[in-house]
Amino acid sequence: MKVLITGGAGFIGRMLAEKILARGTLTAPTGAATAIDELVLFDAVPPPAPRKALEGRVKTVTGDVSDKVQVDALIDRPDMSVFHLASIVSAGGEQDFDLALRVNLDGGRHILEACRRLGSKPRLVFTSSIAVFGPPGMTKRVDDFTKETPQTTYGVTKAIGELLVNDYTRKGYLDGRSARLPTVIVRPGKPNKAASSFASGVIREPLNGEACHLPVALETVMPALGYRSIVENLIRLHEVSGEAIGADRAVSFPSLDLTVGEMIAGLKRVAAGRKLGPIELRPDAEIQRIVAGWPTGTAWAKAKALGLVCDPDVDSIIRAYIEDFLEN
Amino acid sequence: MKVLITGGAGFIGRMLAEKILARGTLTAPTGAATAIDELVLFDAVPPPAPRKALEGRVKTVTGDVSDKVQVDALIDRPDMSVFHLASIVSAGGEQDFDLALRVNLDGGRHILEACRRLGSKPRLVFTSSIAVFGPPGMTKRVDDFTKETPQTTYGVTKAIGELLVNDYTRKGYLDGRSARLPTVIVRPGKPNKAASSFASGVIREPLNGEACHLPVALETVMPALGYRSIVENLIRLHEVSGEAIGADRAVSFPSLDLTVGEMIAGLKRVAAGRKLGPIELRPDAEIQRIVAGWPTGTAWAKAKALGLVCDPDVDSIIRAYIEDFLEN
Repeated sequence: MKVLITGGAGFIGRMLAEKILARGTLTAPTGAATAIDELVLFDAVPPPAPRKALEGRVKTVTGDVSDKVQVDALIDRPDMSVFHLASIVSAGGEQDFDLALRVNLDGGRHILEACRRLGSKPRLVFTSSIAVFGPPGMTKRVDDFTKETPQTTYGVTKAIGELLVNDYTRKGYLDGRSARLPTVIVRPGKPNKAASSFASGVIREPLNGEACHLPVALETVMPALGYRSIVENLIRLHEVSGEAIGADRAVSFPSLDLTVGEMIAGLKRVAAGRKLGPIELRPDAEIQRIVAGWPTGTAWAKAKALGLVCDPDVDSIIRAYIEDFLEN
Repeated sequence: MKVLITGGAGFIGRMLAEKILARGTLTAPTGAATAIDELVLFDAVPPPAPRKALEGRVKTVTGDVSDKVQVDALIDRPDMSVFHLASIVSAGGEQDFDLALRVNLDGGRHILEACRRLGSKPRLVFTSSIAVFGPPGMTKRVDDFTKETPQTTYGVTKAIGELLVNDYTRKGYLDGRSARLPTVIVRPGKPNKAASSFASGVIREPLNGEACHLPVALETVMPALGYRSIVENLIRLHEVSGEAIGADRAVSFPSLDLTVGEMIAGLKRVAAGRKLGPIELRPDAEIQRIVAGWPTGTAWAKAKALGLVCDPDVDSIIRAYIEDFLEN
């Protein structure tokens, strides 16, 4: 079977590709575990040089998910699955409303339509976000039954994506699943335009011996999950039966509700002996405004029932990052 | 100022036009009560012959709300307001998924973009529906904080509309308000493709001396509101300040939670002395499936706080229908 990962040049896209290749199989539209003979990473930007595990084993295609013709050309085999990760992120969407609608909403619709056209009811995993929640409908602790009243354009397009995935699934056009992600830590590389970027930076930059400029207070709580668990859960969500998820195909991923202070304390425990770069408070009003609209606690009974995993603590998340990106 | 009513050939559109003309003014984007010098009814079908109150006082335009060029031509004055009522309805959307997305989603986006382009932050009243609620996220009693997990394509497009109205408002592109309507009774004329059509038919057909074929059981509960109150509330929702509504611009309209049996009992009280056509049970599995997914009770604290009105009982709703359509 074929697997397409949109946003495949991104960190999660590449880690997901590695994990899928290591597995070798996924459940095909037939319902049977099937060997993967084609894995395509699609993204607006060329991927960085692949880690060893991906060398020569994936095809990369650079293009625009809001271009229907390009999307149709990618989703071309009845025996395929799609992980739709491509997205304009939160702060990026606040800067360019039209781009966020074009990529996230129009692009998402192209993906859904292309899957429908296959006629094989392919499995689709769509990455939504905890940013679908916002103050008007939100208790600070959110769950799978919390009303979605997002306060960013990014969150709005993700909430719309969940609705459309549900309806395309209900109509029998595809077999969709929406993964409502918390903040992903620890992302390697450079800060990105996500308002949550500091949650990785506050661990990553000190470990790299660099200064971290923290835009929010130490008391700020972030529901977060380690990238290894994120990737594992994307695959598990792909593999479970649609009936087990139910008519609302969106699932809030597990998360740890961590203060920035707890992340820093974990870093100091795990990295004892390493020379750490300094952490400096540099308040940023726009980032604080966006983050203040996010929930500070999550409940994820549905994810648990479906067998999705959660990291035991922030220390293990930091150790995994050191192992994957500093020691290997 | 100019007022545009999309879906203006429909029953609510025309009743709304009458009421607006009777008022003579609405709050313009300037914030001041302003005389209406142009009222346009836009619809996919030509309007029926106007009732006396509308003769010569409105312009009617026939066209397609999913055609961006046509929509842009209609939304052409900074000093205007839009009531966006045009929609493929529930059963119609189940029959033609692509049409529902084109008219309700693409058409809705054209309306939003055209309002944004004016630059004057015009007021927009968008009619959403109680059909945004569905079993996965729903308690049978719904309110303004109930998660929207619609189980019809119609409901999905309405939930998406609410999200987009909120975000265009948050960005300062327009001043939007979404009216989450219960079932409207008593609609005159013929049955339509709405799954809720029987709620009017069970009163209207007997009064016209015709047989009513009831597709659902007498115990079926429908949150419903009389059309006079619907129209009054659309205008009140247009007139209140956006700040009073808050960041979630969608408002569940007041409703009476009526069983079909209660509607029939009301009919027999109000129409005592009239010869009524027979009511025959003709169960319809598809209508029952759709209706079973709808809530059976509503709470509408926000609507009440904003000064929206509710009919005192079903009898007064039936009396209004007789007065407006059988006696005049």
